[in-house]
Amino acid sequence: MADNHDQMTERTDRAEEEDYSLDPRLVEQVLSAVEAGDAAAIDAAMAPLHAADIADILEQIGSGERARFLSLWSRGIDGEILSELDESIREEVIEALPHEVLTEAVRELDSDDVVDIIEDLEEPHKELILGALDDSDRAAVTQSLTYPEDSAGRLMQREVVTAPADWTVGQAIDFLRDGAELPDQFYHVILIDPRHHPVGYVTLGKILSSKRDVALQAITEDSFRTISVLEEEGDVAYAFNQYHLISAPVVDADDRLVGVITIDDAMAVLDEEHEEDVLRLAGVGGESSISDGVMETCRQRTPWLFVNLLTAIMASSVISLFSSSIEAIVALATLMPIVASQGGNAATQTLAVAVRGLATKDLTPSNAMRIIWREIQVGGLNGVIFAIIMGLTAYFWFGSPLLALVMGASMIINLIAAALGGILIPLAIEKMGFDPALASGAFVTTVTDVVGFFSFLGLATLILIGH
Amino acid sequence: MADNHDQMTERTDRAEEEDYSLDPRLVEQVLSAVEAGDAAAIDAAMAPLHAADIADILEQIGSGERARFLSLWSRGIDGEILSELDESIREEVIEALPHEVLTEAVRELDSDDVVDIIEDLEEPHKELILGALDDSDRAAVTQSLTYPEDSAGRLMQREVVTAPADWTVGQAIDFLRDGAELPDQFYHVILIDPRHHPVGYVTLGKILSSKRDVALQAITEDSFRTISVLEEEGDVAYAFNQYHLISAPVVDADDRLVGVITIDDAMAVLDEEHEEDVLRLAGVGGESSISDGVMETCRQRTPWLFVNLLTAIMASSVISLFSSSIEAIVALATLMPIVASQGGNAATQTLAVAVRGLATKDLTPSNAMRIIWREIQVGGLNGVIFAIIMGLTAYFWFGSPLLALVMGASMIINLIAAALGGILIPLAIEKMGFDPALASGAFVTTVTDVVGFFSFLGLATLILIGH
Repeated sequence: MADNHDQMTERTDRAEEEDYSLDPRLVEQVLSAVEAGDAAAIDAAMAPLHAADIADILEQIGSGERARFLSLWSRGIDGEILSELDESIREEVIEALPHEVLTEAVRELDSDDVVDIIEDLEEPHKELILGALDDSDRAAVTQSLTYPEDSAGRLMQREVVTAPADWTVGQAIDFLRDGAELPDQFYHVILIDPRHHPVGYVTLGKILSSKRDVALQAITEDSFRTISVLEEEGDVAYAFNQYHLISAPVVDADDRLVGVITIDDAMAVLDEEHEEDVLRLAGVGGESSISDGVMETCRQRTPWLFVNLLTAIMASSVISLFSSSIEAIVALATLMPIVASQGGNAATQTLAVAVRGLATKDLTPSNAMRIIWREIQVGGLNGVIFAIIMGLTAYFWFGSPLLALVMGASMIINLIAAALGGILIPLAIEKMGFDPALASGAFVTTVTDVVGFFSFLGLATLILIGH
Repeated sequence: MADNHDQMTERTDRAEEEDYSLDPRLVEQVLSAVEAGDAAAIDAAMAPLHAADIADILEQIGSGERARFLSLWSRGIDGEILSELDESIREEVIEALPHEVLTEAVRELDSDDVVDIIEDLEEPHKELILGALDDSDRAAVTQSLTYPEDSAGRLMQREVVTAPADWTVGQAIDFLRDGAELPDQFYHVILIDPRHHPVGYVTLGKILSSKRDVALQAITEDSFRTISVLEEEGDVAYAFNQYHLISAPVVDADDRLVGVITIDDAMAVLDEEHEEDVLRLAGVGGESSISDGVMETCRQRTPWLFVNLLTAIMASSVISLFSSSIEAIVALATLMPIVASQGGNAATQTLAVAVRGLATKDLTPSNAMRIIWREIQVGGLNGVIFAIIMGLTAYFWFGSPLLALVMGASMIINLIAAALGGILIPLAIEKMGFDPALASGAFVTTVTDVVGFFSFLGLATLILIGH
């Protein structure tokens, strides 16, 4: 126990110092072992690590180093490490594994983890892994793959612990004690009726703390809800977070129990969905990973830059309408980007709040009108504030009260346009059934660039040149 | 059971149709009941709802409607609804509750939920709630409040289930069966040594499925890790997600067990941290909520727009250095925003990947150099691609090969600058100990605006005007 305690202290210290990030010295150590071809040293370095941390190391090192690492240590790769690996390098790792290592690795996994690995693989690797499974597991995995991608059916594990709804605590305990094949982790016993419909669940804590003759039906949880096998995994994650679920039974179209989803899988989905949101809002394909190479990275980003180029050219063609005004008053060229930039930033603020509100289902048809109205007021108020600040700045910079007036007026117009664009565009994209995080950014800044340039240069032409 | 089954079907249907978002018709119905002053109708509408959904309704309706709702239905508000409420309206709701309703509401909560409610309240309300608790709960809450905000100590619940490390399964079962005061939800029995140090834990599933004479020590989980009471809650959430923890013991500086954190709380933290990331990246204070009013919204956003204004003025002053060039060739005014805009977008892409990589601890000192190098290559490659596209566009638009050359060269320069700014600025902000999502955006687009305008106008002046 003394040992145990020391280990624990060390862990705690490590956690406080390093916040769970990989120790760069450890990575160094692994890299020199790889360099030296010293498999024993790699073994020693990997031994105390969690599979998730080993997967992180594989992701952090370069692809050349990874290949050498795998040639030295392929026998260390197990199923858990495979499931922790980022998709972007999983294929590469699988290719490097001897056949019997791969076979053993996938055999030790639950069906949901095998599905998670297999769904992103190319055909030959898919076959390889399916072939490695025993018949019943292969059937389970193949069945899961018939459900749509990103559905509850792909996320669930098929190993469930059930009891007839009319059992008592004692019967449940005896059944569990005889314990045929229980899953590694389970938190509830699901009660089913004779038609295999789940009708409630009981926590293991309640079973343990109740008398043997208590009916299971009497101690079911209020929080019970079932999840349809076709439900989007993002909605599943939302339900877990909203209703504080720990596990939830999954049912087919006939309401029959087909599996169970546990909160750790829901949490992983929540994290992935968030990743997608952040990256999509910034115009990056949602699948980006830190271990992607240059070409893969360009493939994710260049198309969006191309879309941006088109919108930027559109905004520039607005400027070119007014070239004679700019020729007459060159100060216009200096000031016009300020109007566009303030609009772009204000719109991005509104957009982020709207996209997040849609993701958390806080922005709904019930309050959309009120939020739109709030955004217009905020836009107007900020418009007035920055109209005054920039009007005065323009006046002292260029000494023209009329130019200051034009600046102020176009600032108000553009910040109200920014508010409208920032909220209406994501609402419209959502209404059309697309992810509002996707493409909103490009559309919204097009609005603020075009309105910014047009209002500023147009007013200047009317008021300053027209005079 | 038939009833149960029908209810379930209905639930499933609702989930498929509506993805758990609040039914606007339900909100309508509540609003007309409020309008009509019909407390019974509100009761009927609320009865089937989960506390989280009731809280959502309170957040979705306007503040005037909320006040009337509360005057009609304050007795329906319980502890669970209070904990689900967004901070932005919690104070308002607490103020509207009769004293005995508030007392009863907070008494039924676990200590961690009371801490979560109380920590954001103003002093008088804090006192009010502390006063409502019985002595032992008050002591527990007061103790938790001594831990830093956003620490594991605030997040944990103090109700833990422990057993001496030398017990057998049978002893643990008897202890649980006698069941003094067990928490509502628990998933592990934590083994402690005589000095109250946690040395392992056992899942309830293992206890249920093992023979009575098996030692608890023999069936502990490999995943066991403790969390320091001072640890940042964001790091706690990371550890749960990384290591698939369901619950984890919390220890003080002497490694003594002081509480336990469960995954549902960790998941809620993960979600909040996401919210902060998205909003901060977009230049909104991380605390924004859909129920904030106009003034509160301005308070969160206007300061960032002011920072943006300063950086925009800085970029404009670069333009004003070259006003004589623009006067000579007005096409420069038309084309310059395109260079700046492409740079800003490319930088935002890199920034989002970097900020996300830092948040998930995938971007570390071990791979930072490789990622910086990747970004430079991606920037250079995109620079060449868009230099060609925009060079040709500029040539056909304005018919000047030299202008096309200037356009292309400045595009390459600015996209490389964007890559450098997008990765180095968040790394630097993180290194200084701040949240890289905060302020990165403003700094990064300043770089691309200034470099974009300077390189384009400077090269144009050298090559086109200098000629």
